[in-house]
Amino acid sequence: MLSAGPGLCGGHVNSNFDYRRCDRIGMPECIYCASKDPHLLQELLAELCRKKPHPILLTRLSEETFEKLDPAYTCEMNYDAFSETAFLHGVFPKLSTGLVSVVTAGTGDLSVATETTRTLEYLGVPFQLFPDIGVAGLWRIEGNLEAINRAHVIVVIAGMDAAIVSVLGGLTPKPLIAVPTSVGYGVAQGGQCALNSMLSSCAPGVTVMNIDNGYGAACAAFRIIKQIKPT
Amino acid sequence: MLSAGPGLCGGHVNSNFDYRRCDRIGMPECIYCASKDPHLLQELLAELCRKKPHPILLTRLSEETFEKLDPAYTCEMNYDAFSETAFLHGVFPKLSTGLVSVVTAGTGDLSVATETTRTLEYLGVPFQLFPDIGVAGLWRIEGNLEAINRAHVIVVIAGMDAAIVSVLGGLTPKPLIAVPTSVGYGVAQGGQCALNSMLSSCAPGVTVMNIDNGYGAACAAFRIIKQIKPT
Amino acid sequence: MLSAGPGLCGGHVNSNFDYRRCDRIGMPECIYCASKDPHLLQELLAELCRKKPHPILLTRLSEETFEKLDPAYTCEMNYDAFSETAFLHGVFPKLSTGLVSVVTAGTGDLSVATETTRTLEYLGVPFQLFPDIGVAGLWRIEGNLEAINRAHVIVVIAGMDAAIVSVLGGLTPKPLIAVPTSVGYGVAQGGQCALNSMLSSCAPGVTVMNIDNGYGAACAAFRIIKQIKPT
Amino acid sequence: MLSAGPGLCGGHVNSNFDYRRCDRIGMPECIYCASKDPHLLQELLAELCRKKPHPILLTRLSEETFEKLDPAYTCEMNYDAFSETAFLHGVFPKLSTGLVSVVTAGTGDLSVATETTRTLEYLGVPFQLFPDIGVAGLWRIEGNLEAINRAHVIVVIAGMDAAIVSVLGGLTPKPLIAVPTSVGYGVAQGGQCALNSMLSSCAPGVTVMNIDNGYGAACAAFRIIKQIKPT
Amino acid sequence: MLSAGPGLCGGHVNSNFDYRRCDRIGMPECIYCASKDPHLLQELLAELCRKKPHPILLTRLSEETFEKLDPAYTCEMNYDAFSETAFLHGVFPKLSTGLVSVVTAGTGDLSVATETTRTLEYLGVPFQLFPDIGVAGLWRIEGNLEAINRAHVIVVIAGMDAAIVSVLGGLTPKPLIAVPTSVGYGVAQGGQCALNSMLSSCAPGVTVMNIDNGYGAACAAFRIIKQIKPT
Amino acid sequence: MLSAGPGLCGGHVNSNFDYRRCDRIGMPECIYCASKDPHLLQELLAELCRKKPHPILLTRLSEETFEKLDPAYTCEMNYDAFSETAFLHGVFPKLSTGLVSVVTAGTGDLSVATETTRTLEYLGVPFQLFPDIGVAGLWRIEGNLEAINRAHVIVVIAGMDAAIVSVLGGLTPKPLIAVPTSVGYGVAQGGQCALNSMLSSCAPGVTVMNIDNGYGAACAAFRIIKQIKPT
Amino acid sequence: MLSAGPGLCGGHVNSNFDYRRCDRIGMPECIYCASKDPHLLQELLAELCRKKPHPILLTRLSEETFEKLDPAYTCEMNYDAFSETAFLHGVFPKLSTGLVSVVTAGTGDLSVATETTRTLEYLGVPFQLFPDIGVAGLWRIEGNLEAINRAHVIVVIAGMDAAIVSVLGGLTPKPLIAVPTSVGYGVAQGGQCALNSMLSSCAPGVTVMNIDNGYGAACAAFRIIKQIKPT
Amino acid sequence: MLSAGPGLCGGHVNSNFDYRRCDRIGMPECIYCASKDPHLLQELLAELCRKKPHPILLTRLSEETFEKLDPAYTCEMNYDAFSETAFLHGVFPKLSTGLVSVVTAGTGDLSVATETTRTLEYLGVPFQLFPDIGVAGLWRIEGNLEAINRAHVIVVIAGMDAAIVSVLGGLTPKPLIAVPTSVGYGVAQGGQCALNSMLSSCAPGVTVMNIDNGYGAACAAFRIIKQIKPT
Repeated sequence: MLSAGPGLCGGHVNSNFDYRRCDRIGMPECIYCASKDPHLLQELLAELCRKKPHPILLTRLSEETFEKLDPAYTCEMNYDAFSETAFLHGVFPKLSTGLVSVVTAGTGDLSVATETTRTLEYLGVPFQLFPDIGVAGLWRIEGNLEAINRAHVIVVIAGMDAAIVSVLGGLTPKPLIAVPTSVGYGVAQGGQCALNSMLSSCAPGVTVMNIDNGYGAACAAFRIIKQIKPT
Repeated sequence: MLSAGPGLCGGHVNSNFDYRRCDRIGMPECIYCASKDPHLLQELLAELCRKKPHPILLTRLSEETFEKLDPAYTCEMNYDAFSETAFLHGVFPKLSTGLVSVVTAGTGDLSVATETTRTLEYLGVPFQLFPDIGVAGLWRIEGNLEAINRAHVIVVIAGMDAAIVSVLGGLTPKPLIAVPTSVGYGVAQGGQCALNSMLSSCAPGVTVMNIDNGYGAACAAFRIIKQIKPT
Repeated sequence: MLSAGPGLCGGHVNSNFDYRRCDRIGMPECIYCASKDPHLLQELLAELCRKKPHPILLTRLSEETFEKLDPAYTCEMNYDAFSETAFLHGVFPKLSTGLVSVVTAGTGDLSVATETTRTLEYLGVPFQLFPDIGVAGLWRIEGNLEAINRAHVIVVIAGMDAAIVSVLGGLTPKPLIAVPTSVGYGVAQGGQCALNSMLSSCAPGVTVMNIDNGYGAACAAFRIIKQIKPT
Repeated sequence: MLSAGPGLCGGHVNSNFDYRRCDRIGMPECIYCASKDPHLLQELLAELCRKKPHPILLTRLSEETFEKLDPAYTCEMNYDAFSETAFLHGVFPKLSTGLVSVVTAGTGDLSVATETTRTLEYLGVPFQLFPDIGVAGLWRIEGNLEAINRAHVIVVIAGMDAAIVSVLGGLTPKPLIAVPTSVGYGVAQGGQCALNSMLSSCAPGVTVMNIDNGYGAACAAFRIIKQIKPT
Repeated sequence: MLSAGPGLCGGHVNSNFDYRRCDRIGMPECIYCASKDPHLLQELLAELCRKKPHPILLTRLSEETFEKLDPAYTCEMNYDAFSETAFLHGVFPKLSTGLVSVVTAGTGDLSVATETTRTLEYLGVPFQLFPDIGVAGLWRIEGNLEAINRAHVIVVIAGMDAAIVSVLGGLTPKPLIAVPTSVGYGVAQGGQCALNSMLSSCAPGVTVMNIDNGYGAACAAFRIIKQIKPT
Repeated sequence: MLSAGPGLCGGHVNSNFDYRRCDRIGMPECIYCASKDPHLLQELLAELCRKKPHPILLTRLSEETFEKLDPAYTCEMNYDAFSETAFLHGVFPKLSTGLVSVVTAGTGDLSVATETTRTLEYLGVPFQLFPDIGVAGLWRIEGNLEAINRAHVIVVIAGMDAAIVSVLGGLTPKPLIAVPTSVGYGVAQGGQCALNSMLSSCAPGVTVMNIDNGYGAACAAFRIIKQIKPT
Repeated sequence: MLSAGPGLCGGHVNSNFDYRRCDRIGMPECIYCASKDPHLLQELLAELCRKKPHPILLTRLSEETFEKLDPAYTCEMNYDAFSETAFLHGVFPKLSTGLVSVVTAGTGDLSVATETTRTLEYLGVPFQLFPDIGVAGLWRIEGNLEAINRAHVIVVIAGMDAAIVSVLGGLTPKPLIAVPTSVGYGVAQGGQCALNSMLSSCAPGVTVMNIDNGYGAACAAFRIIKQIKPT
Repeated sequence: MLSAGPGLCGGHVNSNFDYRRCDRIGMPECIYCASKDPHLLQELLAELCRKKPHPILLTRLSEETFEKLDPAYTCEMNYDAFSETAFLHGVFPKLSTGLVSVVTAGTGDLSVATETTRTLEYLGVPFQLFPDIGVAGLWRIEGNLEAINRAHVIVVIAGMDAAIVSVLGGLTPKPLIAVPTSVGYGVAQGGQCALNSMLSSCAPGVTVMNIDNGYGAACAAFRIIKQIKPT
């Protein structure tokens, strides 16, 4: 638990939290914790716990930082160490329409996939997870294709050469959001190889997120789901 | 008009055109002409003109290559030199549902935007074009925001720092497909700067295409539009 | 506190501190601690504490190194761990003319911003800080624009896509110094993405510093402020 | 002279020229011609020649494109092929205060320097040019230092290792705007080496522009000059 | 036809052609023409036509250079402009054992594939060509798999994301030599994306050549074929 | 030993282990441990220990992770910390035909070489190791050449400039598989320099693996060895 | 021959030619023509032909530019198109001491080698040329080693993987200056691969020049030769 | 002190130490410890302590590794932690001719400079050290120039923009060996910026080493010094 004062020369920083974002774009501002000084993070939590505007999602919240925070705030959180995400004050109500398939090429991609599924859970979007469907064994895609295609949006998460994206993109008519992961070594270059492969995919209409951006993929899927009229 | 024989040691190459792609993913195979030997391209056109499977889109067909082709085939094409696209045997019927907004940051991005609008026209997707809406004059976005938001999908096309993506992404709830262009010089690095900016956008849920891939953005929009139930 | 002898084969290194820099360029030499061997750093401190030429600024002085130094020297310092800066023998007298606005896109950019504001404080330049003014919520810029524009120079500090630079650059006539930060992941590439975005900005006349160089931005602002005649 | 219709599918593109930029930031929108389709460029010129809002600067206007334009418009231009710039409807009145020194490391940097001086001329800012002051012969800097320092702002333009920036930055108290050029070969990498050298300069407070961005340097100098009160 | 003297200050360059390479490694030295001054190339041809050591392969011999050479030499060549290869004094006798499958992902990869097949023809290695087997239509691989697998070595040639390599690598037990091509644009980066994808392939034991190195792939296949005992 | 539940929100992940790979390509799926969450790794081990399909190879299994695993599984493993590999349930029977030479340029390349030799041991392929044969002392290659050439395949492992590849490639007719290592500093760039050198080798028909991919080189050698008929 | 006026807005540029460089460093300033506007180049030639200070070397003078120059100046030049070099007013007298061996890996490296030998000729340094000594045939080095070692300095010029540098560096005690060339394709990356290989060479004490910098290698050799006392 | 057996599967590795290198190139093989497994390093030490061929230099020997070695060997070493170098069995006798100046731009470059001076000491080459001579204060070079020039070779060591190289190169006729260091942040990119600046230096005949390669610079200087005849 933090005890020292804020890092900014002893002063107090007025919050600029974007409370009106939900009205403008249908999604609230979330809190990306990786680059935030723990003191400032805690000040922001204090404000949010006081105002309770709506459920809040925290991403890239490492276990190390989480444990430094005041239990007064963390006790109100649902924290998942594997995906480094937390819900503060619960999640949004479940949507009545829309389904997202989250597919991973390997088990190494599961922490990013869980950032996606946790964000979908937070936004109230139904989803199904298909882990470890790599193309070195094509039967893994073929056996799951019908189930995958039941969704309105497919999020495909892969590292290394990300070959699954072109294969799946040639088999499904659904919107496809590809997330490169930093899994791999050497020329995989921290996900850069997977990113470029996805952007160069020979399957038409594949869209791509930043490396390891499981959160963004969920938001992109949410934007699409909101266009679908409930039956 | 080409007269010499094919480049492949005088032999004949059996076509592998993917006639069944439309059934699998709802979109036909298109012909990316940039890397194709003109002799092989013409052989493929001969086959497609004989079989007439469905309307065909050709992309990256430079004026120089277009003029080398046999008039017997080019007379059946609708060719646009600015976007280097051609329709062979017309376009698909117009969809009754769905609208796409195509937004560009500058006039330099218009050739890529036209690749997008020509592909949308080919696939039968209604669209509206908003050219030259750069953020150095914010009034250009603000004055058009309501009209832009009328669409189900927004394609935003920009070079250099692509700042428009974060601004627009913070103002619209619609699915956002960002296309970096090779406009710019120095560190713009042929579109790499715009690409990375788009992938790093602070607005949630922005999806990204390869540099100058106006065709792919249209396909991605089409995949989304197909999920929307007609009213 | 260090006890062992110097790293250089037991010898003594004559200082080459640039005591005359203030006369030449109006700013003293500062001490960049990141690459300095602690033994050599302490030798230099000993000399400066003996000669007391003028107030001295130390940058990139990590808490770990700070704690290794002899309390005889550190007791004469004003140290700030958040920005890793220290003042030795106070700061320069406050200038009667000139005001600098320091703007950050996110709270993650605050440690770099504090390096800037600490350097301005050291050089005697008045400043005002506007933290967390990102463009995903444009109201944050618009609500602060008039106050920001009251300054003679604006330092804008941002990571990721740094879109704020083009937006602000299209709204202010003031000299604009942009500092990219290493905030972000994946293609943000340790600040390279923000750097290239700033250099490619479509707003005219934006000048740029090295990644995380909050100190340099303050020096650049100081060079400008010195050109303004007092009223 | 262009005769064919516009590239955009035969339609007409409404101009989005930012006529109000001058009011907001004190500088008008200029026209970057490199990425513009000649047909669209000519449409824009027609509009500007009809409205005559204020003097207009065109940059990156190659001789090849210039010669394709309608003489009705080019006859109203002052065109300089070396710097690829043109003035349409004259230049702004000369400022009564402010002087800029434009320094180049080699004669190979002169085309970029001329883009700077032409832009300064257009904006009405007095300047003096010091070409070919490379550090392999230090006497060239030392002999000109006093004259260079008479200005309020120094623009230094260099390719290859850009060593002049650190040397000059250690000798002058004036604001220093560094422009890397694409002069050089091999690891000079089209100006990337000069850019990184300038950003890493050991002289404090050097600010940097994009590679070959002589226009931007003039705008940055103009922003500074406008802060100086006339005596 | 060349008439001027050699480029080397009027002197004569003694050949260092590696006549003994065939004895050491079973393959002769071939002539890579891309970087060779045409005068020097012709001098070398003169020597080889005089000595006639064994059949000679020339690669990267552009049509432009080919036409500059003395007909006295070119009349003894079998030249193919599509692959930019030539045989001087015929080819080696056909091997009684061994078969190579050459597979391409797209028709754009055919010029590189033809460099491979021409080199195999020159070395006397039997081969079969499977063009345009991209994974966006999996049926193209599946329908040809049995035939492809009949060979002792598979050369797979692909640009862009090169996804075919992982798919094929998971379906065949044969030695797999992957050749990235410079087909593609944007992040395909002249073949760098395909190269990295191939090196990162999740299929075990895929080996990789330099970008567009169809010649090298044939040599690598030849090295393997030579290990197979004739039945 | 792990005690906590799986990272995936408390749920259970069905295994997708590719039990049929051996039938398709002659080699089983191996387990790349570097990117795998230890909980998931242990679940997979539990399944494999229950099913015992065939000997299993684990690669990139760090000592740190190894020690976290349940002794119930690790006691059935043959673990080598130097190469970070483990055999679970033994190795495959030794092949009666085929020999591989594994050559390293320096002693720093031995950990990668051991990943290769351990994989060969697992697959049942006979091998001989020639460590530390760098070209700065040519006698080291020349003295071992005859012995090296006795094998059917040569794996050459080198970091830095990897000059040994071109030298050896000019002296041997055998299939050559080159593995770059991350040995070196500065421009060696984590193996990128060795990789590019190998791909650019002037010796014909050298094939290349990803950086540090000793496992893949063994698999590639195995694919070749399987083509050789037993005598 | 040029007829138009200078590019600099009609003005005249005072020369800053470094006439005193010879006194300071023993070598005169040479003229790098690649980045120079032909008008400015001709102005400089006019001045030098008037003053005739000493022999002048021009490098990177393309045939195209050479032919645009006034015959009044070119008639006084000794021009070599292959190396793009010219001597104006002869060369310096031959030194009585010192010998340089210039070695190339392939014939494609000869244009760079000729830039080196022409510069040595200009500076009066005796040299011997050993072209095409690549390591794929080691006998080419071994047969020439004794002769190469007769020199005081060895310049070795190579593209692609530049393996010759490590081999030669392990066989000679002489100072070794390595020049990477832009020969090669794909990952050779315009000489970057050769450059990094040379810098990473396992042979001790190899020094390196910029890509294609044959001129610089000659100057570096000259600096060394000048340290050798005549016998 | 190490107790466990060697990493190589319990076996013994025959040494390939290049005992004859001194005869061939005048310098012995040194031991680069960074990439060596401590067990193998110790085996090599055991052999060298038994054979005592000549004085041995160890580089990149971190304190952490040094402390793991058997005191039986370390007690015979002269170890310097700052430069991570050790002498085993003393150093070579001092040469009667030759002097090297070692110059650094900043105090942060001193650890690399000490690797250079320690290697010179080991090889018996006299030297003088000039630390902290950066160009932001030109008086530091000018005041030391005469003394620096007294040497036969100058080694200049610098990070960041390495501007000192061009300045010094324009002031001295002596052979100049430049060593980039990894000092700096952001675009300094671990020394890549300094490296490229040095290679692009406008001063003629500057030669360059790999980043942080202080050892190599000493070897290069030694190769030159050996060419100088004793007076």
